[in-house]
Formats: sequence, structure tokens, C-alpha cells
Amino acid sequence: MSFKKIETRFNQLRHNKVFELFVIAIILLSALVIGAKTYDLPQWLIQVLPWLDIGVTIFFLFELSIRFIGEPQKKRFFLEPWNVFDTLIVIVSLIPIEDSELALVGRLIRIFRVLRMVSMIPELRLLLNSLIRALPQLGYVVLLMFIIFYIYAAAGSSFFAPINEKLWGDISIAMLTLFRVMTFEDWTDVMYETMNVHPLSWMYYLSFIFLTTFAFLNMVIGIVVSVMESEHAAEKEQDDLEQGIPTITDLHIEIKELKALITAQQTHAPKQKDSIVNAKEN
Amino acid sequence: MSFKKIETRFNQLRHNKVFELFVIAIILLSALVIGAKTYDLPQWLIQVLPWLDIGVTIFFLFELSIRFIGEPQKKRFFLEPWNVFDTLIVIVSLIPIEDSELALVGRLIRIFRVLRMVSMIPELRLLLNSLIRALPQLGYVVLLMFIIFYIYAAAGSSFFAPINEKLWGDISIAMLTLFRVMTFEDWTDVMYETMNVHPLSWMYYLSFIFLTTFAFLNMVIGIVVSVMESEHAAEKEQDDLEQGIPTITDLHIEIKELKALITAQQTHAPKQKDSIVNAKEN
Amino acid sequence: MSFKKIETRFNQLRHNKVFELFVIAIILLSALVIGAKTYDLPQWLIQVLPWLDIGVTIFFLFELSIRFIGEPQKKRFFLEPWNVFDTLIVIVSLIPIEDSELALVGRLIRIFRVLRMVSMIPELRLLLNSLIRALPQLGYVVLLMFIIFYIYAAAGSSFFAPINEKLWGDISIAMLTLFRVMTFEDWTDVMYETMNVHPLSWMYYLSFIFLTTFAFLNMVIGIVVSVMESEHAAEKEQDDLEQGIPTITDLHIEIKELKALITAQQTHAPKQKDSIVNAKEN
Amino acid sequence: MSFKKIETRFNQLRHNKVFELFVIAIILLSALVIGAKTYDLPQWLIQVLPWLDIGVTIFFLFELSIRFIGEPQKKRFFLEPWNVFDTLIVIVSLIPIEDSELALVGRLIRIFRVLRMVSMIPELRLLLNSLIRALPQLGYVVLLMFIIFYIYAAAGSSFFAPINEKLWGDISIAMLTLFRVMTFEDWTDVMYETMNVHPLSWMYYLSFIFLTTFAFLNMVIGIVVSVMESEHAAEKEQDDLEQGIPTITDLHIEIKELKALITAQQTHAPKQKDSIVNAKEN
Repeated sequence: MSFKKIETRFNQLRHNKVFELFVIAIILLSALVIGAKTYDLPQWLIQVLPWLDIGVTIFFLFELSIRFIGEPQKKRFFLEPWNVFDTLIVIVSLIPIEDSELALVGRLIRIFRVLRMVSMIPELRLLLNSLIRALPQLGYVVLLMFIIFYIYAAAGSSFFAPINEKLWGDISIAMLTLFRVMTFEDWTDVMYETMNVHPLSWMYYLSFIFLTTFAFLNMVIGIVVSVMESEHAAEKEQDDLEQGIPTITDLHIEIKELKALITAQQTHAPKQKDSIVNAKEN
Repeated sequence: MSFKKIETRFNQLRHNKVFELFVIAIILLSALVIGAKTYDLPQWLIQVLPWLDIGVTIFFLFELSIRFIGEPQKKRFFLEPWNVFDTLIVIVSLIPIEDSELALVGRLIRIFRVLRMVSMIPELRLLLNSLIRALPQLGYVVLLMFIIFYIYAAAGSSFFAPINEKLWGDISIAMLTLFRVMTFEDWTDVMYETMNVHPLSWMYYLSFIFLTTFAFLNMVIGIVVSVMESEHAAEKEQDDLEQGIPTITDLHIEIKELKALITAQQTHAPKQKDSIVNAKEN
Repeated sequence: MSFKKIETRFNQLRHNKVFELFVIAIILLSALVIGAKTYDLPQWLIQVLPWLDIGVTIFFLFELSIRFIGEPQKKRFFLEPWNVFDTLIVIVSLIPIEDSELALVGRLIRIFRVLRMVSMIPELRLLLNSLIRALPQLGYVVLLMFIIFYIYAAAGSSFFAPINEKLWGDISIAMLTLFRVMTFEDWTDVMYETMNVHPLSWMYYLSFIFLTTFAFLNMVIGIVVSVMESEHAAEKEQDDLEQGIPTITDLHIEIKELKALITAQQTHAPKQKDSIVNAKEN
Repeated sequence: MSFKKIETRFNQLRHNKVFELFVIAIILLSALVIGAKTYDLPQWLIQVLPWLDIGVTIFFLFELSIRFIGEPQKKRFFLEPWNVFDTLIVIVSLIPIEDSELALVGRLIRIFRVLRMVSMIPELRLLLNSLIRALPQLGYVVLLMFIIFYIYAAAGSSFFAPINEKLWGDISIAMLTLFRVMTFEDWTDVMYETMNVHPLSWMYYLSFIFLTTFAFLNMVIGIVVSVMESEHAAEKEQDDLEQGIPTITDLHIEIKELKALITAQQTHAPKQKDSIVNAKEN
């Protein structure tokens, strides 16, 4: 059997619905194994779990090989971010970790296997993609929020550090406290405490809440609606193109053609007249 | 009186405005009966309530029969989900429950009678339908959220279980705790506790809050706006069609016809010219 | 001076910018008087405030009379809801209340004078109108929410009343507790308490939070976006009409006219041809 | 070297990418200095920090001079709000503050230097501009909210002041308490307290929450969507103009021209006919 044949077979296997469901089932199993470890388990299950773990790792290695061999263009395989992600997960899982300290890290990496769910289900991949597409715009929102946080935290730790060292001790603790205020989590306790010393400090909190909550809401809604609309418009344009629905530009071109036709007729008409004149002369 | 006649009469009765209002009144009464049972009541009322309950059940059976007999196409009756729902409620209400344990279940089912309100008021049915229409898209959002929760819960119960068994004991308890963190309910208490042991654990909480709150907000707004817009567009198209407002496609067709007309005129013109030429020759 | 003349003068006065600002100043003064009463005041101010109150009442009576006399069509005056509101406020303020029990009610009514601000500033009136326009649709959302609340409250008070009488004693208390859960206010305390008895009761809370928070968010955003879009579309149409920007319907009509022109030309042409034929025959 | 030459050079320097990045780096350094001061620092760093502070101030003065000299039209320099802001920050930083009381104020002003980040990064400036553009509309929303707050606070402090002086003592404290209720922060504690005296006071809280939360959500979403849409429409129009995509108005003009052409042809035709008639007569 030639290699080309194997490649075609593996590519077919890879896109087989039953095989895909089986892979999803194994991912679910690996998720359950991770979850199960957090419970108090009977002795026999504790002994079985590591073997299940190894089984899952081997299966993932096997599945990845099929996907790689089945890929007609080997180079393009690692250009797909999800393939890189899958490969990394499998490689790290293969490293044997006996050290108790690194064991926790190994366990953490095994948890990320659940994310393979996203790479297997197209609808989730779509959802995540649209989230990632909004990121560049959101990056600047986060930066602006960070600046607001930094300014308020600097002011807060300057004024309130002597009142409560635990909440306003330094600028990083103050930023955490402000994040707490932004989530409205017992923020009045924080405020009442400082109001005893600085009676006007409610202005600090209220202005902060207004700036962050409102600005955040405003910008997030704005970005989501804007991303949504441009996607919608692009989709509609695509649909119109596919269904052959004419655009205003098409109409424009057709009217131009019409004009050309009529003008042609008109420049044609004088000749006609001339010939008539000739007829008269005759 | 023939059966056909009864069917027509019952169908008329069923769509009678007064009858509909009477059914809604009975549903309200049944809701009040359910509510009344939760209060401390005088002896006589306690004795009356079960009879009212039976009365409501009988009326619902009666009303369902009218609706069923009044339906011209008997087969289609059970294809309407609300009819199936109503039938189930009535059937379960008819089962006599004496057993004290099942009494609670019976009581619960009687509570669902209030939902019949939705099946009676068209505006509510519409509202619920548009909610249900958004469900398939939301299903994937929920799935993605669940994956995020699962990963964080697995990590959380791995690291924090020794700190607070009650909050991070196993993966299901950890997921409940994370849900609490997502609703900002005393989440700082949870965080401060783990920060005493792992000073960097604020990164765990903040990244979780960002991922869930922001992603959730983003996706829900996105879906709602998207569902809204496509509904709007469909509605507008329908309106334009009904009011005879032309679309760009209509314009396109008309311009094409215009072109055909002018072209016809032009191919017609040469003949005219020929005849003139003939005139000249003559 | 004839009555007509007075009417015209008063109407001019009423729409005078300075007079309007003066009225707003008096409303602000009346608001300050109401606010001032809640502070511990020096003796002389306590004695002055009731006189200020009377002064404001008299001025409002005076201003209302000017508005009424200045209205060219007396009948239409009370068709405007804001005029009715203003009149009610003035009339009730005139009733002398000595009784200490009713004094609080009288005070409450004086508070509503601040709402006259809305009737004076057109932008606020606009804002409120757009809020009121969304109300009918929101009415059904509130009704649906109430049904969900009622069902959950009935179930909650059935199961949890023995656990905490204060939170789940009867259906109305249970509804208040559920509202608290919906606002995420210490909802975990409520849940943990019932989970000690019914370990699965987290399903009750989570499903409730999902149903209410999500459904509410979904429907409110939906309605706002929908109301917004239809307003926008109506506004755009109005703008296009005012600026003489043509619509697709206009284009449609013009193309039709064009077609008629060409057809007319074509039916005209044969005659032309006939005359040529005649020329030939000649 | 002439002044014109210096101006051109400075203008080039000012728009130089490397220079811009260097300015941003200095702003970051100044932010770090401000943040560092809130920590317990080793002695040598405490002595270095003021010198760094002075260095930053001098650099900012230097950079502002370059920008001012590099500006071709000196008058327009102070019309740009960000230039005014930068100048103010630099001038205030230059004032030597030895007084310990004013030192805090000086420190606060230095914090605002971080905002220069916004004036340097165009994307942030864009974000802030779109936020500021929504302000006028939001101003009225805030005014309406303030009126609602004022009315509820006046009523609240009238009724509840004897129950809890700390929360309802006077109208300003009552407004702060209401703001707390609006953020759902332990609002049930506030409510349960007053419900002991006035059992129906839950109506006060629930109506307030409904009015503020719902009205706020409604209006903010409304404004954001509305601002978003008009920006989108303006942008699309601009794009269409730039890409030469025709509008309906363009189509309208072209169809008119077409009509004129055809009409011209038609008025031309009769002459033709006349000549033919002449031919016949000949």
C-alpha cells in the first residue's frame, strides 16, 4: 500500500463522523478522570485512574498522528493554531513527572485537555474566533481601564494607606481593592471606613464607580454592537452576491449602459434625418 | 345534533373572548389557591381549598375536552406543544395522591398550572418563542462556559482543597463556588482566604471573572443583537412585500425591461431607416 | 384691555426664556426647601421654611394660571398629561394639613414637585417619553417574570418554609427572598442554609438565576434595541423626506415614468413610419 | 540656521516614531515612580526618586517646547485640548512644593501625568472622544437619575430617619444609601431594618431598584446603540463616497438625466416628422 493511499485513508478517517464522536467521547472521559481525582475514591479506582490517564495520552498521540499523516499538505498542519495547541498538550502529557512539585503542573496541563473540546466542535471554534476578533479593540479598552485604575490606586494608597494597610497598603493592593469596589463587593464597608477620616471620600468611590462601570459598559456594548454590525453587513453582502441580488452599484452600471444605449440611438437618429433630407432633395 | 355541529360550536366557544377570559380567571384562581396554602389559614378555608383544587382540575379537564372536540383536525391537536403541556398537567392532576411523600410532587405539578397563563396569552407565547429561538445559539455559549468552569474548578480544587474543604472540596463544590464568584457574591472573602496561602491566587480569580463576565456579556449581547437584527430584517422584508414597497431587485428587473424596450426600439429603427432609404431610391 | 390681548400676552410670557428659567429656579428652590427640612436647622430657618413653602405654592398657582389663561384652546389644556400633573400638585399643596398623620402625606406630595423639572425641560420629557413608549412591551416581560417568580416562590415556600420561616414563611416573603437572590445579594447564605437539608437545592437557585437574569437581560436588550431601531428607521425616513433624499420607491416611480415615456415614443414611432411609407407611396 | 528650519526639524522630530515611543517610555517611568512611592523602599531608592521626578518634569518641559516650536501655526496649538492639558500638567509640576499639606496635592497632580498616555496613543484618544461624544445625551440621563434619587432620598429620610440615623439621617446621606441600594450592596440589610417598623417599605426599595436599574440600563443601552449606529452610518457614507459607491441620490440624478435625454429625443422626433412631412409634400 503506497503512502498516498494511507494519507487518503487517514484523511477520510479523520473526517469520519463516528471517529469524531469517538474522539469527543475520549476527551469527555479524560475530563471525567480529571474531575474524579478531586473526590475521595475507593482504592481500586485510585489504582485504575493513572492507567486511564496513560490510555487517554496514548489515544491522543494516536489521533494526532492520524491527523498529521492524513493532512495532504504537511507544512500547513502546524500553521493551524489548534493543531499546535493539540500537539503541545500531547507532548507535555508524555513527559513523565514523578517529582511531587511538578506533579501539580502536570495535572494542570492535563486539565487543558478539556479545551480540545473547542478544537473538535466547529460551533465552539466559531464562537471563540468571534471573541478573539473583538480582542484588538478590547485591548485598548483594557489599557484605558488600567490607566484609570492606576490613577485611582495611586491616589487611594496615598490618602488611605494609614487608615487600612490591608486594603490600601501599596498600589497593587489598592488596585485589587478597586477591582473589588468595581464589582460592588462590600464596597460600602471600604467606603464607610475611609469616610470616618475623610468625610468627602465618597466622591472618590462614586466617581470611580461611574467612570469604570459606565465607561466599561459603554465601550463593551459599543464594540460588540460594532463588531456584530460589520460582520452582519459583510455576511449580507456575501449572501447578496451568492443569491445574485443586485446592489446599488449594479443598478448604477445598468443605468449607465442604458444612457449609452439612448445616446447611441440619438447620434444614430441625425443620420436618419439626413437620409430623410436626402429623400427630400431627391 | 351531528358531531360536526358540536365541533363547530365548541371551536367557536374556544375562540370566544369571554370564555378565554373565564379560563384565565380560573388559572388565576388556581394560582391563588396554591399561594394561599403557604399561609396559616383559618380552619374552614383549609377544608374548602382541596375542593377548590378539585373544582379547578375538573374545569381544566372540561376546557381541554372542549378544545380537543373543537379542533377540526384531531391529529394536529397533539402536535402543538402547548396542548401536550396542558394535557399532561390535567392528567397528572387527576391522579389521586394520598401518600404524604408524593403529595409534595403533586403540589409541585399543580404549581406548573400557572404556566398555562403563557399558553393562554398570545403576547407571552410570542415572548417565550423568541427566547426559545435564541436557545440553540445560547446552548453553545453555555457549553463554552461549562468548559471554562470545569477547567477552573479542576485547577481550583487541586490547589485550594486543603485551604477550605467546604468551598473547594471536590470539582462540583468548586464549580458552585466559582458560580458564586461569577455573581460577585462575597467573592473577595473566598479570594483573601486563598491569598493567605498562595499570594498570587488573585490572578486565578481575576482571570476567571474577566473570562466569564466579559465573555458572557459579549456573547449574550452579540446573540441578542444578531437574533434581533435578522428578525427585524425579515419583518421589514415582509412589510415591504405587503405594502408593495419595491426592492433593489425590483428596480433591477424594471431597468432590464427598460433596456429591452430601448433595444427593441433600436432594432426597430434600422427597418425604419431602410424604408426611408427605399423612399429615397423610389 | 380685551381678554384676547391678555391671552396673547400670557402666552408670550409663558414661552419667554427668562420666565422659564425663573420657574426652574423656583422648582429648584422648592426642592432645596424639601431637602433642607431633613437636616438639623437653626431655629430661625425652621421658622422661615414654612413661609418659603407657602411662597412656592402661591407662585406655582400663579404660574399655572398664566399657563392656563395663555392657552388659546382652553379645552386642550387638560389633555396634556403634564398639565394635569402640575394642576394636581398645586391643588393638593393648597389643602391645609394640620393633622400630624396627614402631614407626612402632604410632605410626600411636596416632594413630587421636583418632578415638575421634567415637565419644564424638553430633553427630559423626551427621555421619559421614550421610556414610556417601551413600557407596553415591558409590561409582558414583567408579567412573565412575575409568573416565574410565583412558581419558584410557591415551590420554595413548600420545601424551605420549615428551614427558615423568615425567608420562606409564605409565598410573598418567598418572592421577596427570590428578588434578593436575583440581585445576587447574599444569595449563597440563603442557598447554603437550604443545602444542609436538601443537598440538591442548588439546582433550584441556579435554574432560577439562569431563568431570571438571562431571560431578563435577553428581553430588555431585545426590546431596547428593537425600539431604538424602529425609532431610528422612522427618524431616517423623516430626514430623507425633509432633505428630499429619494427612496427606492421614488426611483421605482421614476423608472415607471421613463418606461411610459419610451413606450409613448415607440407607439409614436410607427406613425412616423407610416408617414414615411406615405412619402414612399407619394 | 533660520527659525523656519528649526520649526520644520522639530515638527519632524515630533512625529518621529522613535521619539514618540521614547516619550511613552518616559510617561511609563513617571507612572512607575508614582507607584513605587507607595511601597516601603530601601533608603537609596527613596533618595533617588525625587531626582527621577525632577528629571521627568524637565523632560516633559523639553518635549512640550519641541511640540510648541514644531507647530507651524502657534495660535492653533492651544486650541487642541490635549495640548492645554499637557501644558497645565507641566506648569503645575514646576511649582516647588515644600509645604507638607500641599505636598499631597502636588503628588495628586503628578498622578495625572499618566493620563498623558491617552494624549500620546491615537487609539486611546479615539476611544475617549467617542465616550465624550455620548456625554451630552448622558448628561440628561444623569439629571433624570438625580431627580429620582432626590425624590426617593427626601421620602426615605422623612420616613426612615428615626429608624437608622446613620443611613437616613439627612437627604445627602440618604442619597448615598440609595446609591448603595442601586449597586445591590447589602441592600436587604437596609430593607429588613426598615421593614420591622414599616412592613410595606419593601415597595419603596423594589420600586426604586426597578426605576433606577431598569431605567439606567434602558437609557445607557439606548444611547450607546444610537450613537454607535449614527457613527456607523456616517462612516459607511464616507466609505461609499471614497470608494465611489453610488447612493440612491446618485441613481436618482442619473435617472433624471436619462429622462431628459429621452425627452430631448422626443422633442427632436417631431421635427424629424415635420421634415418627413415636407418630404411628402415635395
